[in-house]
Amino acid sequence: MPELKIGLPKGSLQESTFALLRAAGWDFTVSSRSYYPTVNDPELKAMLARPQEMSRYVERGVMDVAVTGLDWTLENDSDVEVIAKLVYAKATRSPVRWVLAVPEDSAIKSAKDLEGKVISTEVVNLVKKYLAGHGVNARVEFSHGATEVKVPYLADAIVDVTETGSSLRANRLRIVDTVAESVTAVVANRAALADPWKKAKMDALVLMLQGALSAKEKVLLKLNAPRKNLDAIVGILPSLHSPTVNDLSDKEWTAVETIVDSGVTRTLIPQLKGLGAEGILELGVNKIIP
Amino acid sequence: MPELKIGLPKGSLQESTFALLRAAGWDFTVSSRSYYPTVNDPELKAMLARPQEMSRYVERGVMDVAVTGLDWTLENDSDVEVIAKLVYAKATRSPVRWVLAVPEDSAIKSAKDLEGKVISTEVVNLVKKYLAGHGVNARVEFSHGATEVKVPYLADAIVDVTETGSSLRANRLRIVDTVAESVTAVVANRAALADPWKKAKMDALVLMLQGALSAKEKVLLKLNAPRKNLDAIVGILPSLHSPTVNDLSDKEWTAVETIVDSGVTRTLIPQLKGLGAEGILELGVNKIIP
Amino acid sequence: MPELKIGLPKGSLQESTFALLRAAGWDFTVSSRSYYPTVNDPELKAMLARPQEMSRYVERGVMDVAVTGLDWTLENDSDVEVIAKLVYAKATRSPVRWVLAVPEDSAIKSAKDLEGKVISTEVVNLVKKYLAGHGVNARVEFSHGATEVKVPYLADAIVDVTETGSSLRANRLRIVDTVAESVTAVVANRAALADPWKKAKMDALVLMLQGALSAKEKVLLKLNAPRKNLDAIVGILPSLHSPTVNDLSDKEWTAVETIVDSGVTRTLIPQLKGLGAEGILELGVNKIIP
Amino acid sequence: MPELKIGLPKGSLQESTFALLRAAGWDFTVSSRSYYPTVNDPELKAMLARPQEMSRYVERGVMDVAVTGLDWTLENDSDVEVIAKLVYAKATRSPVRWVLAVPEDSAIKSAKDLEGKVISTEVVNLVKKYLAGHGVNARVEFSHGATEVKVPYLADAIVDVTETGSSLRANRLRIVDTVAESVTAVVANRAALADPWKKAKMDALVLMLQGALSAKEKVLLKLNAPRKNLDAIVGILPSLHSPTVNDLSDKEWTAVETIVDSGVTRTLIPQLKGLGAEGILELGVNKIIP
Amino acid sequence: MPELKIGLPKGSLQESTFALLRAAGWDFTVSSRSYYPTVNDPELKAMLARPQEMSRYVERGVMDVAVTGLDWTLENDSDVEVIAKLVYAKATRSPVRWVLAVPEDSAIKSAKDLEGKVISTEVVNLVKKYLAGHGVNARVEFSHGATEVKVPYLADAIVDVTETGSSLRANRLRIVDTVAESVTAVVANRAALADPWKKAKMDALVLMLQGALSAKEKVLLKLNAPRKNLDAIVGILPSLHSPTVNDLSDKEWTAVETIVDSGVTRTLIPQLKGLGAEGILELGVNKIIP
Amino acid sequence: MPELKIGLPKGSLQESTFALLRAAGWDFTVSSRSYYPTVNDPELKAMLARPQEMSRYVERGVMDVAVTGLDWTLENDSDVEVIAKLVYAKATRSPVRWVLAVPEDSAIKSAKDLEGKVISTEVVNLVKKYLAGHGVNARVEFSHGATEVKVPYLADAIVDVTETGSSLRANRLRIVDTVAESVTAVVANRAALADPWKKAKMDALVLMLQGALSAKEKVLLKLNAPRKNLDAIVGILPSLHSPTVNDLSDKEWTAVETIVDSGVTRTLIPQLKGLGAEGILELGVNKIIP
Repeated sequence: MPELKIGLPKGSLQESTFALLRAAGWDFTVSSRSYYPTVNDPELKAMLARPQEMSRYVERGVMDVAVTGLDWTLENDSDVEVIAKLVYAKATRSPVRWVLAVPEDSAIKSAKDLEGKVISTEVVNLVKKYLAGHGVNARVEFSHGATEVKVPYLADAIVDVTETGSSLRANRLRIVDTVAESVTAVVANRAALADPWKKAKMDALVLMLQGALSAKEKVLLKLNAPRKNLDAIVGILPSLHSPTVNDLSDKEWTAVETIVDSGVTRTLIPQLKGLGAEGILELGVNKIIP
Repeated sequence: MPELKIGLPKGSLQESTFALLRAAGWDFTVSSRSYYPTVNDPELKAMLARPQEMSRYVERGVMDVAVTGLDWTLENDSDVEVIAKLVYAKATRSPVRWVLAVPEDSAIKSAKDLEGKVISTEVVNLVKKYLAGHGVNARVEFSHGATEVKVPYLADAIVDVTETGSSLRANRLRIVDTVAESVTAVVANRAALADPWKKAKMDALVLMLQGALSAKEKVLLKLNAPRKNLDAIVGILPSLHSPTVNDLSDKEWTAVETIVDSGVTRTLIPQLKGLGAEGILELGVNKIIP
Repeated sequence: MPELKIGLPKGSLQESTFALLRAAGWDFTVSSRSYYPTVNDPELKAMLARPQEMSRYVERGVMDVAVTGLDWTLENDSDVEVIAKLVYAKATRSPVRWVLAVPEDSAIKSAKDLEGKVISTEVVNLVKKYLAGHGVNARVEFSHGATEVKVPYLADAIVDVTETGSSLRANRLRIVDTVAESVTAVVANRAALADPWKKAKMDALVLMLQGALSAKEKVLLKLNAPRKNLDAIVGILPSLHSPTVNDLSDKEWTAVETIVDSGVTRTLIPQLKGLGAEGILELGVNKIIP
Repeated sequence: MPELKIGLPKGSLQESTFALLRAAGWDFTVSSRSYYPTVNDPELKAMLARPQEMSRYVERGVMDVAVTGLDWTLENDSDVEVIAKLVYAKATRSPVRWVLAVPEDSAIKSAKDLEGKVISTEVVNLVKKYLAGHGVNARVEFSHGATEVKVPYLADAIVDVTETGSSLRANRLRIVDTVAESVTAVVANRAALADPWKKAKMDALVLMLQGALSAKEKVLLKLNAPRKNLDAIVGILPSLHSPTVNDLSDKEWTAVETIVDSGVTRTLIPQLKGLGAEGILELGVNKIIP
Repeated sequence: MPELKIGLPKGSLQESTFALLRAAGWDFTVSSRSYYPTVNDPELKAMLARPQEMSRYVERGVMDVAVTGLDWTLENDSDVEVIAKLVYAKATRSPVRWVLAVPEDSAIKSAKDLEGKVISTEVVNLVKKYLAGHGVNARVEFSHGATEVKVPYLADAIVDVTETGSSLRANRLRIVDTVAESVTAVVANRAALADPWKKAKMDALVLMLQGALSAKEKVLLKLNAPRKNLDAIVGILPSLHSPTVNDLSDKEWTAVETIVDSGVTRTLIPQLKGLGAEGILELGVNKIIP
Repeated sequence: MPELKIGLPKGSLQESTFALLRAAGWDFTVSSRSYYPTVNDPELKAMLARPQEMSRYVERGVMDVAVTGLDWTLENDSDVEVIAKLVYAKATRSPVRWVLAVPEDSAIKSAKDLEGKVISTEVVNLVKKYLAGHGVNARVEFSHGATEVKVPYLADAIVDVTETGSSLRANRLRIVDTVAESVTAVVANRAALADPWKKAKMDALVLMLQGALSAKEKVLLKLNAPRKNLDAIVGILPSLHSPTVNDLSDKEWTAVETIVDSGVTRTLIPQLKGLGAEGILELGVNKIIP
């Protein structure tokens, strides 16, 4: 039986990655000390690895495909193909950023002010590229962790990852610039992509992942609309596709069904009610394939 | 941009309040040590505060609106408007009660027996009102916590909050009387209510909260009914609105859809099956706006 | 009011049993130290007990019905009626097995090699029956726990329970044979079954449990099918019942709705999309009564 | 090199046993999942096992010596030699007891009242002996744990282990009688005792264990005594041996040193001070070999 | 048998209080949910209570004596006798302080600036006295906890307890003034003090507590001093009492023994070594009664 | 006031380092999120940093002195002075080792077999030096953690740190060679060493650390020896210095006092007892300066 070797991120992304894969139809489980998850699909063989190292293993072909951060793929300068970007970082839905940060009261206001300074970071290569881009010479030291506490004593500035900036603010740091953005990505080994079976398997994986990810932000709205206001009601429904409208036995009323962003219901529903809609139901969905 | 200042309860109600607000469409997140949650709605500005103190802040206008306990609003005798009552205490769906309790073997059988006794409680004002209502003189001491262990050595009776009474029973206490009932309430500052934008925002908030709360206790039932038993089947469906009935291609069968209380399905479904219904599906719903 | 006394398993099965019962419509709650759960059904009276001892209590009539393991029911040789088997062990959906296991490098290759050996197990009676069936004489010692570490020093072989075998492999044990399989079962007292009210109550309980269990593995699929491919699409839908097909206002399209195994969607959805289906939605369901 | 195989108790006694052995000079360490502790003595080879099973392994010679409970040694009726009794149960210094207990309001007042009743216990053999001694017939059921919650529904009485009785009281049980007392014991295999090297090793082990155990309850008291009150001071010192008295350069004063029970210092020191003693020091000791 | 009723603080002081009492010779133990510790002294009867309420119970005679905070005794204005002050707050040995604090950037620089402001605190009476002493009118609100996060939104200033100020700094607060200092105190009921047996028991308790507390900060130093440098060595020993000097068989050397503050050994020992001392030993002591 | 800047290790060595410093007379405390401990010595200013980075900071003069691992000092090739080596790794007293390890069944038997292989390690420079020393070419990849699970899929061999080898054995790895040994070291900045005040402060620090470390492995033994056996008794005492012998009032007996390794008492004490010694006491010591 053919087999696709898939790498999954160990650590802070593991739980959310497993949850998304479960939503997509693959249920990975791993005992607390193992690095080899089992999965309800005999065509997959899974391995956990640090996101920092993942792209190296995909490049070497130890893995055919992996879910990892785009940032480390760039930091490692790995020769792999990014076949999908998935935005589902832990706390928010926005991309994470690697930012240049300094103490609140530092004199450093822009990249230019870094000349001759010491910068502590986990992404030494990304920072060196950034400095080169600004024509600045500075000492870049690899940080083994807790980068945000390195300034001001152990370094003049840091480049660290952040989602909301709240941890930086709590450490009284000021963000000077964004060095790189990152999202979770599906990256593939180039030789694996040339194998039709593996290619099809990866395509199905990406389709289902995106279907599950999309479903997290959508809901199914069902409502009874008075026929006289049907046009007005359909007019305010922000659906991509036109909504499904069905007759009801009571000819004054119709049944409307549509998919909308979950974020709009709190403003949409009061409006619908204002237009006479009744029996408004919101249901969650598992997957949406448009 | 206009902004509504909303107070949310720190402590035992926080998790359930955040969950309900999330269900209603507002996703508050707060780091473990912060008192200022962020939310996916730029029109809201949130603050955490103790339920005991909340109504004071709403009265003073530090907050426009707050989710808090009705009990403490009364204890503080705050001049605020209760715009909704939400029943979703931690363990149960019933209101919590502040009860007068004594040791199992105490001679105190009613409020009258409290004359000259020492009562320990966190709600000193509510208890004084209660005693005045019964024409009884007793010493009411403020309890800094663990009130249920104050009797019999440190006090003769207590007035403490309970949902199910199980903690009181575990401490071998007997409930003598209910001093006050309480529910979670949305309370508003009177000046904020006079501001049309704030009023509309609060109305939408309450509408969605009630839609989400209502949905917790309802389910969507779908089933195929043999046409010959359709009347009998519709007859036992306890829906407020008449159910939606649709034809199926097989003319012997119809598709029925309705909202029912989740609590009745365990008795309703066996009956429906007895009447020949097939393909009975029960789906959860996120929100119901009738 | 009549009352059905129900026993629920304390320990590793408790959480999953409570979750399944909640899904079925009964919400049991129990404080951490109590053995008497409360439930939102005045006709039930619940007690927690060890699965190992449960069938003895059902046999004696202390309980009318209980959810417990079939293995211990057999080990105890209790005179009770198994009225349903429910497969929902913690990590997987497969039955658990009691297996004969030895150290990886042991000379024991089959039951025959146990002659004269020491076997440590919690299910002494099941093992004795197994040995008798193989005509083997061996010493069977009751294990008070941690059976898997008894070999090779404290015993020559063990008979222990396993779902996936991973704990055995982690202890470098080799499975020699399966001594018994087990599932979670609903067992009833024979006298209680003769009482019509109790019998009906147990039947409803089993019907709803199976409806909830079945729903865990199914999803509701909704999609818009181009009329020209409708037959092809319906042809690949693996539903037991024929799917519900409805007209849409756009006559080129139809709305299809069906229940499928959640495990097939990851292969089915790419195929449906290949046949031109659009707006594919997957929804979870709470209960399915076929 | 000769080697003594020693069994140590897994579970609730493990931590205190390791602490006592460390105080005695042997430092056992074990990783959380291993059953084979390492120790700073190449002449010892250690194994962890349940106290319930330990004496069986000593009897069979799997272990030469073990630290275990006397109760389980009797329950198993193992043919081993008890070479020392060590009293250091978790919460107190008193022996633990296996007691017959019933609900507070039970009609059972003595062993005689057990006729025809159901008794739940982990020590089936000890209870059967006890019942035989009282000429009583009752059904004794093996309890897989949580014995104290078995009454009144699942059994009429229990025999359970207790140190202080507080857990029984918390469950509203009344102690009817003591079925057996138990202490921690050092038990030896009879063949090992016949080996002179093993015998000497076990003797040293017991000597050091008792020296360390004894030291826990004693302190070294040093004080300066005015010569005129020396006799009075020495007179109230409750030491087994006469105290060491030394001259000081100031001839009016002497230096006194003695070992006393730590429990008496709180009454002794005020008396000594009353007799003019100065510079009273109390020091802890690691070991005392009288 | 006569009995002394002693109150011990529940909460943050409990562990350190129990540890000090254990060092003094009384071993209190309490199960996690009980408020009635047991103790190895039949003449004591112990009760746990909140420090905030303790002095009220001593005043009423519910307790004869209690270990509690001086601050709450003053806040409650209780008529009790302070018979000893014990300094052993959790993190440090210094008294705790109730301080007036404001946001770092607040305009409030001294008590005078509080006129018309809102102050949040747990010690309403102490703050009112403080304000009266400064002739200032301000609103003092009782804080139910987390006082340090009340500013700037919910109050203008706070009065909160601190040992090191680090929690205040972490919340970006500035200390304006100290409102009150506090230490742990032994407070006695006046009637109990008039009972000779109770008085003697309390005296012994205080003597032993102070002996144990004193021992925490002292060590016993033993060293061999070359006779020729003996005077120089004795000269730098900072002992209250003159050290004990004994002859050794080698007449060139003497044995010196003395008690010194543990804090000085890190500077003293290098000096002693510089003066030729050898075999310098430092030993901990359990109790010192001078 | 002059000030010595001291670096202390964050992470797995932190607790043991703080404990040793406390034993030596310096009490560092740090709140859980701070990197700047406070200490009871105004002449010290402390900073926490990762051991991996520490020597870089000492070299740059950000710190005058630091407690760190010798391994990382070598890996960083930092120009600092090692002024003391302290052996107190977490589980044992032996130096930790960086070992070359491979899967149990790997064909790699010695460094020579690494030619062309992939090696994963945190100490890239140490491994490159080691390979160069053996004239071997291999790819050395930096490991971001969990190095022991990299083989066999992600690397052919690893170089990882170990104290006892048990974690390697648990991962079924075989140790091929030791690449480097390491101990905890006190390293000093060269400029700081040239400052007399700083030099003296560092010397005192090292003296006290060694005195405290030495005391952990020694005990004070006191015993009464029958004069007739005194020579035999003194003869077996393994003390560096001759023991202190004093007369007792009973002329048949003498008092002997000596320091011995704690590891020998379990064999020494039985021998002393055999020679008639009585009243043998073993006391722990805080510090020993020979």
